[in-house]
Amino acid sequence: MKVSARTASILMFAAMAASAQAGTREGLLAADKAWAAAYSAKDLSKSVAAVDSEGALLWPNAPAIVGKTAIAKAIQDDFSQGDLSWRARSASVARSGDLGITTGDYTLKSVSGGAVIDNGKYLTVWKKAADGRWKVLRDMFNTDRPAAAP
Amino acid sequence: MKVSARTASILMFAAMAASAQAGTREGLLAADKAWAAAYSAKDLSKSVAAVDSEGALLWPNAPAIVGKTAIAKAIQDDFSQGDLSWRARSASVARSGDLGITTGDYTLKSVSGGAVIDNGKYLTVWKKAADGRWKVLRDMFNTDRPAAAP
Repeated sequence: MKVSARTASILMFAAMAASAQAGTREGLLAADKAWAAAYSAKDLSKSVAAVDSEGALLWPNAPAIVGKTAIAKAIQDDFSQGDLSWRARSASVARSGDLGITTGDYTLKSVSGGAVIDNGKYLTVWKKAADGRWKVLRDMFNTDRPAAAP
Repeated sequence: MKVSARTASILMFAAMAASAQAGTREGLLAADKAWAAAYSAKDLSKSVAAVDSEGALLWPNAPAIVGKTAIAKAIQDDFSQGDLSWRARSASVARSGDLGITTGDYTLKSVSGGAVIDNGKYLTVWKKAADGRWKVLRDMFNTDRPAAAP
């Protein structure tokens, strides 16, 4: 097979792009896991720092939460609701590597006793910040449990 | 100012990228609007066709809904719940133009009488399909209303 210099450089670029893509996806899953660890430790400053300055928490039973102060208050309130843990089940990253999503399942256990008081799914949108770190742009979740009778 | 051919081509590429980005964002908002119109008309086939073959509906009170049959059933059930309308408030697109998100507010009105029975927010993740059209990869929402008393 004759491979021209042009074809070779295209192949090399494609291989590099595929490799960068796989690395980026792993990096995104690592960011998701790091946020879950900060949350699990109820580390407020780390948990808030994971959210981008333009980020919004789209949580149930309230309008969108924006701004560092409101976000810190919401996370602090969340810590007191129980022990939250989650695990990513899927991750997708744009070819350009600047936008990605993770989805997965969460479990909320009571602080006293550890009974599961809620479980559901989440969708987090991440943007690659100027420093190369993934930051939360949007975070949303809802319960898998049946609606309460009206 | 002396502008080298290389600088000129970089500037031209940047201008093209910025223009493509703006066009892509408008295209994404148009896709969101078209889906809302299909939904408003309770057009099941168009509403289902907006969802990617790998798409999932992450709706409250149930696990993730995947696969065309389950998605069609969920949308049909949703049509019977009331008259749903929504409006995008934000849209972001990756530089590569293959992944984007829209967020906004929804209102659910009763079919009989038109009273607002629920209102909240949504987050839709879109991927650019092979034919250049935006398709729903993930769709999630939750209510802004206070939680029912336990």
